[in-house]
Amino acid sequence: MLKKLLMTGAAGGVGKSLRPLLHRLAERVVLSDITEISDLSPHETFRRCDLGDRAHVDALFDGVDGVLHLGGISLEKPFDLILNGNIVGVYNLFEAARHHDMPRIIFASSNHVTGFYTRHERVDPSMPVRPDSLYGVSKVFGEGIASLYFDKFGQECLSIRIGWCFPKPINPRTQAIWLGVEDLFDLCERGFTAPRVGHTIIYAVSDNEEMWWDNSSAAFLGWKPRQSSARWRADVLANMKLETPTDPDVIYQGGHFATSKHPDDE
Amino acid sequence: MLKKLLMTGAAGGVGKSLRPLLHRLAERVVLSDITEISDLSPHETFRRCDLGDRAHVDALFDGVDGVLHLGGISLEKPFDLILNGNIVGVYNLFEAARHHDMPRIIFASSNHVTGFYTRHERVDPSMPVRPDSLYGVSKVFGEGIASLYFDKFGQECLSIRIGWCFPKPINPRTQAIWLGVEDLFDLCERGFTAPRVGHTIIYAVSDNEEMWWDNSSAAFLGWKPRQSSARWRADVLANMKLETPTDPDVIYQGGHFATSKHPDDE
Amino acid sequence: MLKKLLMTGAAGGVGKSLRPLLHRLAERVVLSDITEISDLSPHETFRRCDLGDRAHVDALFDGVDGVLHLGGISLEKPFDLILNGNIVGVYNLFEAARHHDMPRIIFASSNHVTGFYTRHERVDPSMPVRPDSLYGVSKVFGEGIASLYFDKFGQECLSIRIGWCFPKPINPRTQAIWLGVEDLFDLCERGFTAPRVGHTIIYAVSDNEEMWWDNSSAAFLGWKPRQSSARWRADVLANMKLETPTDPDVIYQGGHFATSKHPDDE
Amino acid sequence: MLKKLLMTGAAGGVGKSLRPLLHRLAERVVLSDITEISDLSPHETFRRCDLGDRAHVDALFDGVDGVLHLGGISLEKPFDLILNGNIVGVYNLFEAARHHDMPRIIFASSNHVTGFYTRHERVDPSMPVRPDSLYGVSKVFGEGIASLYFDKFGQECLSIRIGWCFPKPINPRTQAIWLGVEDLFDLCERGFTAPRVGHTIIYAVSDNEEMWWDNSSAAFLGWKPRQSSARWRADVLANMKLETPTDPDVIYQGGHFATSKHPDDE
Amino acid sequence: MLKKLLMTGAAGGVGKSLRPLLHRLAERVVLSDITEISDLSPHETFRRCDLGDRAHVDALFDGVDGVLHLGGISLEKPFDLILNGNIVGVYNLFEAARHHDMPRIIFASSNHVTGFYTRHERVDPSMPVRPDSLYGVSKVFGEGIASLYFDKFGQECLSIRIGWCFPKPINPRTQAIWLGVEDLFDLCERGFTAPRVGHTIIYAVSDNEEMWWDNSSAAFLGWKPRQSSARWRADVLANMKLETPTDPDVIYQGGHFATSKHPDDE
Amino acid sequence: MLKKLLMTGAAGGVGKSLRPLLHRLAERVVLSDITEISDLSPHETFRRCDLGDRAHVDALFDGVDGVLHLGGISLEKPFDLILNGNIVGVYNLFEAARHHDMPRIIFASSNHVTGFYTRHERVDPSMPVRPDSLYGVSKVFGEGIASLYFDKFGQECLSIRIGWCFPKPINPRTQAIWLGVEDLFDLCERGFTAPRVGHTIIYAVSDNEEMWWDNSSAAFLGWKPRQSSARWRADVLANMKLETPTDPDVIYQGGHFATSKHPDDE
Repeated sequence: MLKKLLMTGAAGGVGKSLRPLLHRLAERVVLSDITEISDLSPHETFRRCDLGDRAHVDALFDGVDGVLHLGGISLEKPFDLILNGNIVGVYNLFEAARHHDMPRIIFASSNHVTGFYTRHERVDPSMPVRPDSLYGVSKVFGEGIASLYFDKFGQECLSIRIGWCFPKPINPRTQAIWLGVEDLFDLCERGFTAPRVGHTIIYAVSDNEEMWWDNSSAAFLGWKPRQSSARWRADVLANMKLETPTDPDVIYQGGHFATSKHPDDE
Repeated sequence: MLKKLLMTGAAGGVGKSLRPLLHRLAERVVLSDITEISDLSPHETFRRCDLGDRAHVDALFDGVDGVLHLGGISLEKPFDLILNGNIVGVYNLFEAARHHDMPRIIFASSNHVTGFYTRHERVDPSMPVRPDSLYGVSKVFGEGIASLYFDKFGQECLSIRIGWCFPKPINPRTQAIWLGVEDLFDLCERGFTAPRVGHTIIYAVSDNEEMWWDNSSAAFLGWKPRQSSARWRADVLANMKLETPTDPDVIYQGGHFATSKHPDDE
Repeated sequence: MLKKLLMTGAAGGVGKSLRPLLHRLAERVVLSDITEISDLSPHETFRRCDLGDRAHVDALFDGVDGVLHLGGISLEKPFDLILNGNIVGVYNLFEAARHHDMPRIIFASSNHVTGFYTRHERVDPSMPVRPDSLYGVSKVFGEGIASLYFDKFGQECLSIRIGWCFPKPINPRTQAIWLGVEDLFDLCERGFTAPRVGHTIIYAVSDNEEMWWDNSSAAFLGWKPRQSSARWRADVLANMKLETPTDPDVIYQGGHFATSKHPDDE
Repeated sequence: MLKKLLMTGAAGGVGKSLRPLLHRLAERVVLSDITEISDLSPHETFRRCDLGDRAHVDALFDGVDGVLHLGGISLEKPFDLILNGNIVGVYNLFEAARHHDMPRIIFASSNHVTGFYTRHERVDPSMPVRPDSLYGVSKVFGEGIASLYFDKFGQECLSIRIGWCFPKPINPRTQAIWLGVEDLFDLCERGFTAPRVGHTIIYAVSDNEEMWWDNSSAAFLGWKPRQSSARWRADVLANMKLETPTDPDVIYQGGHFATSKHPDDE
Repeated sequence: MLKKLLMTGAAGGVGKSLRPLLHRLAERVVLSDITEISDLSPHETFRRCDLGDRAHVDALFDGVDGVLHLGGISLEKPFDLILNGNIVGVYNLFEAARHHDMPRIIFASSNHVTGFYTRHERVDPSMPVRPDSLYGVSKVFGEGIASLYFDKFGQECLSIRIGWCFPKPINPRTQAIWLGVEDLFDLCERGFTAPRVGHTIIYAVSDNEEMWWDNSSAAFLGWKPRQSSARWRADVLANMKLETPTDPDVIYQGGHFATSKHPDDE
Repeated sequence: MLKKLLMTGAAGGVGKSLRPLLHRLAERVVLSDITEISDLSPHETFRRCDLGDRAHVDALFDGVDGVLHLGGISLEKPFDLILNGNIVGVYNLFEAARHHDMPRIIFASSNHVTGFYTRHERVDPSMPVRPDSLYGVSKVFGEGIASLYFDKFGQECLSIRIGWCFPKPINPRTQAIWLGVEDLFDLCERGFTAPRVGHTIIYAVSDNEEMWWDNSSAAFLGWKPRQSSARWRADVLANMKLETPTDPDVIYQGGHFATSKHPDDE
C-alpha cells in the first residue's frame, strides 16, 4: 500500500470517479488540479497547481511514493493550451519526480495517439502512432518523455491509453472503447503493485465484446478487466441508425477527433 | 433490424438450421434455392433460382437490404458444377447486389480455402490460401470477388469460412472445427449490425477447446461464440482409435478433402 | 535444357518478346495462341488453341516437358471473356498437365492480384490478395488452382506476377514495376532449372530503383534481375506533371486498373 | 487409455504429485527413478534406473505405449551431473523409444530455456532460447533431440516447459509461472490423446493472472488450464516488500537461476 | 524542378553542406536561420527567422513550393531551448504550410528518436521510438505532428532520421550511421519528385557496411545511397582502442546521447 | 590486431584453408588439433589437444586474446564421439575462456542446426532450430552454451553457421550454401574487430545467387561476402540430372544429413 499518492487532474471526470476508490490503494491522497476541490475526505489533501509552472509541480511531490497523472487538457484545444498543460506540464511532472526519489508514475495517455487507425485494424502498443488531434500529439510527446526517463534515469511509468471513461457508451465507437471505473482502478492497482513496470504502454479498456486493441504485450501485469459495455448493446443498436459505413466518423478509431477541424478553425 | 433478408441455398443443411432463427434478424425473409421449399412461415417467401443464371439472381434482389449467401456447391464436385454454382454464381450475386443498392452480403466461404495447412499450424485470415479441393478454389475466387467489390465499388461483405456446421462432431477434426447454429446466427447478426465491415474474413467456428484458427483480426465485430464441442469429447475419443498420426487425413486441416482424388477420378 | 517447351499466348506482346530467346531454353518450342502465328523458326511449331476448349488444350501437351502459360485475357474485359480464357482456360491447362506427366508450369499471373495496395505499402507474395479488376480476380483463381495442384497432385508451378513488360516505362507507376525481357527470360530459366519449385509465387519485376515488392521469399531461385528502368527516369519525370498525390491512379499500385469502372459500364 | 505408461523421475516432487492421478490415464504405470519408491499401488511397478546407463533405460520400455519423462537433474548443478542425467540421459531415452516402437513421449523441459528474457517480454515457443543455467542449456539440448527424432524418425514428443509446480507461489515470479497439478495432468492427458503432436513445445503454466508466455501456437491441443495462482495474490503482495525493480532477480524470467553464479563457484 | 525552395536552419552544418547542391532542385532558394547568412548566390535569398515566432515563420512561405526543414536545436540542450525551437517551431512550420497551399515538407528528424536501441538490434521506422535525449523526444513530437497533418489535412511530409552528416566518421558508431552529403541531396530530390510521399519516415544513412537500420518500407522512393564510410574503416579501427563492449556508449545506438546526463545537470 | 589467436581444429579442412590468412589478423597463432601439424610458419605454434579433456583445453589459453573454435566432430558420427568433441568439448572451451579473461570466441556452428527446413523456406537465425543430425543437435547445444555464457558471464561469442566451405560446389544444394575462404576470413575479421558482438548468430555463406538464409539481423557487423558460387553454375546444372523434386535430399536444406540413417544403423 502506498503511503502518499498524488493524483493530478483530480477535479476532472476521471479523477472524480476514481477518488472514492483510492483509499484502497494509499494511506493519504494528495489531490491536485487547477480547479479547487472542497469536499475532501480525511485522507485527502488538496493542492492547487498549474502544471505549466515548474515550482507548483515540484511542490506537490513532498513524500509522494506514487503518482497518478490525469492532469492537463483532455480534449482538442488550441495549441497554446495544450503546450502549457500537456507538453510543459508533462515535462515538469517527470522532472519533479526525478528530483523526488522517482515515485512510480501512472500517466494518462489516450487512445487518440492512434486515432487514425481504422476500426478494422487491430492495434497494439508497439505499432506506430497515428494521432488524430493536437491533443493526441501531446500524448505522443508524453509517452516519449516517459520512455526517455525510464531508459536514461530509471523512472518507472505505466502509460495507459484511456478509452471512453464515462458511465456508459453512447454509440458503437464508445461501446468498443468503454472503460469502467472499477477496471481502471484495478489497472492502477496493478501498476503500483507490479514488481517492475519499466516503461509500459497499455490500452485502458474494459472487457467489451467489440475490441480494437491488443494488450497481450502487457499481460505480465496480470490486469483482467471485468466490466463490459455489452449490457448497453441493445440501447446502442437502437440509436445507431445514423451510422453509415462511409462516414469518416465511423471509419476511424478516433471518431470525431479524427474528422474535426483544426481548433483554430472551429 | 433488416426489412428483407435474402438467404440463398436455403434448402441446404446450414440454411435449414438457420431458418427458425432468422425472424430475429429481419421482418421478411426471401428463401432461395434450386430445390423447392414448401413449408414456409408467414414471414418467409420462396424463390427458385439457378445461381448460374444472371436474370434469376437479379430477380431475387428487389427490396432486399441484407444477403446471406449460402448457395452453390458445398462439397467437392466435378468442375462444371462448381463453375456454374460457385464461380458464375458468385459473380452473378455480387453483380445483382451492385445493381440493387448494394445490400450488405454475408458470404459463406469455407475452411477448405486453407485445408492444406497442417493441424499444428495456427492459421489466420491474413495467411496465404492453401485450398484442398476445386470447391476450396472456388471459395478463393469468391473471396477475391468480395475483396474487389468492396475496394472498387464499396460493396460490403463479411466472408465467413465455415467449419463443420452439423449437430455434433464425429471425430477429432470436426471437434476442432465444429460450429453451433446459435453461434453462426450470432455471427450473422454481428455481420449485419456492425456499423462497417468493409470486406472482412473470419473463421466461423464455435468456442471449442481445440482451436486451429486465430480470429483476432476480426475482434472489432464483437462476436463471442458461446457453444463448444467439448461436451462430445469423451464420445469422440472413444471412437478415435482409427486415427494414426501419419495418416494424411489426420495431418491436414482439410481432412479427407485434402486426400481425396480429383472428382473426375472418383 | 528442355526437350519441348509449350508457350501459350505466344502471339501476345510478352510472348512475341520472349520468342527469340527461347531457343536457349528448349530444343523445340510449341507456340500456341488463338491468333495464327506464321513467321516460324525451324525449332518452332504453331498450334491454334482456344484455352476454353479442353480438347484443344489437351492436344498441345504431347511430349511437352515444360509449359510457359501466357495465354488468356491480359486486360480488364467483360466477365464472359475472362471466364473462358482465364478461369476455364487455366483449369484446362492444369488438367492437361496432370494427364501428361505433369511438366513444370510457369504461370503468368499479374501484379493486378494486389493492385489495391497503395504505393507506400511494401507487398510480398504471402500477403492477402487485393485484386483491382475482374482480370485480377481471375489470376487469384489461377494461383489458387496452382496451389491445389501442387499440394494435392505434386504438379510444380512458378506463378510469376508480371509487372509492366513493355519496352520502356511511361510514368512513375510503370517505372516502378517495369520488367525487362532479358530479366523475364532469366526468371523463366530459373523456374525450369531449379531442382524444385513446389508452388512458388514471385513478382516479375526488374531491378528498378523504386520498388514496391519484396521477393525475398523466393531467393532460393537465385534470380537476380539485371535490367533497370532508371535510365528512363529523366524522361518520366519530365512527363510527370499531371500526377497529383491525391489522384487514386497515383495512390494505388494497380493504377487505372484500380480506378476504372466495371467493364459492363465502360 | 494407455496400456502401460512409463514415468521417469517418479520420486521427484512433480512425479509424486502426479502419481495419484495417473490411473485415469493408463492401466499400468511403470515408475522409474534412481531413488527407490516403495509405497506402490497395485497398478504401479517400480524400476530403478540411472538414466546415464543405456541398458538401464532400454530395460524400462518393454510394452510401454506412453512415456512421461520427468527424470534427470531439475536444478542448477555441476556440469558432470547434468551431462549424465540430462544430456546422455535424454539421448538414451529417445534411443530406447526408437528401438521400442516409438511410444509417444512427454518431455519435461523447463522455463529455464528462456530464463534470460525479461518479465516484460512476452515469449512464445518459436522465439530463440535464452537459457539461464547449465540446467537450462541441457533442456535446450533435449528439445533439440526431440526435434530431430520427430523430423527424422517420426518419434512424436510434446516438450512441456514447466513453470513452478509446487503447492503454491512464494513471490511474484512464481505467481506468474505457477502450475497446478491438475492442470499439468490435463496437459499430459491432451498430449497422449491428441491424434498427432509431432514435436510441439508448450509452456506448462496455469491460468494465472500475470502471464509471460504465449501458448497460442499449441492451441490445437485444446488444453485449457483451469487453476490459477490468483487466490494467493494477497499473501504474495504482503511478502513482496523485498522486491525492487532494479534487482536482476526481478528483471529476468529465470529469477535466481539467471543471477546465480556458476555451480563450480558456489 | 521546384520554383522556390525554403530551407530552414541554413546556417547549420548540414544546411551549409547542402547549399551548393540546391540549384539542381529549385530555381530559387530561400535560406532561413536565426544566424545571418551573407555569402548569397544569385538564386539565394536570406530571411532571418526565430522558429518560435509564428509571424516570422509565416513570412517565409510566400510562393514556396517545397520546404526543407533543418531548423531548430540539433543537440541535447536545456528544455526551454528545445521547446522553442523544436516543439513550438515545428508546430509553427506546419501551421504556416497549412495556410500556404501545403508545399511538401522534408523534415529533419534524427536517429536519436531511437537512440536507446542497442547496436545489435535492427531497427525500422515502424518500431516504437526509444528517444535518448530531450532533443530526441522533440523529434518524436515533430514526427507526430507530421503524421497528424497528413492524416487530417493532407499535408505531405518526408521525415528523415539523419545519421551522422559530417565529412567523415570518427569512431565505429559514426561509421555505421555516416551520411554523405550527395546521398542526402539525392534523398531530398526523391522526396520532392516522388508522385506521393504521404507521411513517410526513413533513416538517412549512406550505403555503409555496418548497418543498424532497415529502410525497406520506404523502397518505393527509389533512393539508393551511393556513398559509404568504408574507405575510412582502417582509420577508424586504428583509433578504436578505447571502445570496450561493456561501455554504454558502445552498447546503445545513440552513443553519448544515451549516456549523457540531463542537460540541467551538466 | 590480436596478439595471440587460438584456432582449434586447425588440422581440418576449414582450418587448413584459413591458416595462410591468419597472419593478417594476429601476431601469433596457436594451432590446436588432436592430429599433429608439423609445417608451422614462424608465427604459428602447435598444441595437441583432446577437447574432451578439460586440462588440455585450459592449457591452450595462456595469453590468448581471440579464439576461433573449429574443433570437434564435423560430420554425423556415433553419439559418443559427438558427446566428447562437441558437447564436453564446447563446455570445456567456454570454461577455459571464462577462467582466462574471456577472449572473444568465434564458434563454428553449422547450417545443420536448421537442416530440416525445406529449401523453399527462408531461414533466419531467430527461427526455431530444426537439427538434421546428432551433429546438428550438438551445435544447438553449443549455441545454447554461448548464449548462456554471454547473458550470465559477459563472454562474447559470434556463432557462425557454416555452409559448404570447400573449393567449389558439387550440386545445387552446395551451390546455394557455398562459402569461400576469403569470405570466411573476412567474417572472422569482423567478428574480432566489431566493438561488441554479444552473442550473435550468423549464417556463414558467400554472396551466392541462390540464397536460403537471411542474415539481416547481423548487418551491424558490416560483413559483405564478395565471393559467389555463380561461376560454377553451368557445371552444376550439367551434372544435376539426378535431382528430382520429390527426393528428400532435394527437399531439405540439410541434404543427405536429413535423410541419412541413425549413425548406429549405418
